[in-house]
Amino acid sequence: MPKVVDHEQRRRELAQAVWRVIRRDGVDHASVRTVATEAGWSPGALRHYFATQSELLAFAMRLVVERIEARIAALDRPIDPRQAVEQVLRELLPLDDERRAENEVWLAFTARALIDPELRAQHNEVHDALHQACVSAIETLAAAGLANAGPAKSLQAERLHALTDGLAVHTALRPDLMPPDQIVAVMRLHLDGLDNEAGLAEPTANA
Amino acid sequence: MPKVVDHEQRRRELAQAVWRVIRRDGVDHASVRTVATEAGWSPGALRHYFATQSELLAFAMRLVVERIEARIAALDRPIDPRQAVEQVLRELLPLDDERRAENEVWLAFTARALIDPELRAQHNEVHDALHQACVSAIETLAAAGLANAGPAKSLQAERLHALTDGLAVHTALRPDLMPPDQIVAVMRLHLDGLDNEAGLAEPTANA
Repeated sequence: MPKVVDHEQRRRELAQAVWRVIRRDGVDHASVRTVATEAGWSPGALRHYFATQSELLAFAMRLVVERIEARIAALDRPIDPRQAVEQVLRELLPLDDERRAENEVWLAFTARALIDPELRAQHNEVHDALHQACVSAIETLAAAGLANAGPAKSLQAERLHALTDGLAVHTALRPDLMPPDQIVAVMRLHLDGLDNEAGLAEPTANA
Repeated sequence: MPKVVDHEQRRRELAQAVWRVIRRDGVDHASVRTVATEAGWSPGALRHYFATQSELLAFAMRLVVERIEARIAALDRPIDPRQAVEQVLRELLPLDDERRAENEVWLAFTARALIDPELRAQHNEVHDALHQACVSAIETLAAAGLANAGPAKSLQAERLHALTDGLAVHTALRPDLMPPDQIVAVMRLHLDGLDNEAGLAEPTANA
């Protein structure tokens, strides 16, 4: 082993091994041992990155966030605001094998965060980042007259966020009922609905 | 012990013990052992009802479905269709301590169904029953001109169902951000949106 370890390079190597295991075996069968074998590392060498199943999930979740951020950063943003919003939402939805694997990591991580306080802070960060993406989507649409801005803006963002997460849960549990075109059709119906609401007076925030 | 066991009576007793344990310790700390102690039964006597943690969750989930069905059956249905729909949706949302406990059972059960094939069939049943409740809600609203019936009816039901489940997940994980009035406000915003869509598009006859 070289004296100076290229930490970033090793992390990338490991990330690729983690992702191969998740794609091949499913997130629930990914273990510290299988990842070590896949990477050709000793279990001890993994310890710097993760030592337990919870830490493996935390690592995988960071990976998912990085993957989504990289895809969104690489998008050629269309000028049309509705298309721009749809494009970002598509990166968050389980529309192909890669994004379905990401979705399963997110759901396993979410379920684990419910009972593991150590994952809670990271879960909250991911939740808040997704919520912020929904706030931005509503702001983009509202600025173009395609959604209703106003006192209900934060409720609109929560509505879009809850819809997105609900679709993700349904796809993970009932993939047979949720092919990609069904997911996209529901999302488009929602964006059409926001567009319709844009013409109305500001909705009353009931909160 | 009497020779003839009143099975229904014993099941009710046990259900009450399971619910007391879930309310006191949380669903993730409810175990076959703690439930046996709470009920004053021997672990062996429980075996007829559940023997493992997965079966305990399955039992608790059936309990949640029964509780929700009983509450909905007991509702005085208002004549106003929008109020009737809101009333049913409120029974499905985690708006008080009892329904938050039910919500946590549902989420733990959902997470477990993801990795436990034995729970999958029961999960699908619960999912389909909730989906059917959303189909009925959309049909009730559409019949009153408060939502768009037509070819998109099943997409509208999925949209409402995903929104409901997304709100449930968010409440379980971020209770601080999701007080009951926030959940109700998002749901009302959605129902207002459906109402608005009803006026703008032509419902087709062959829905």
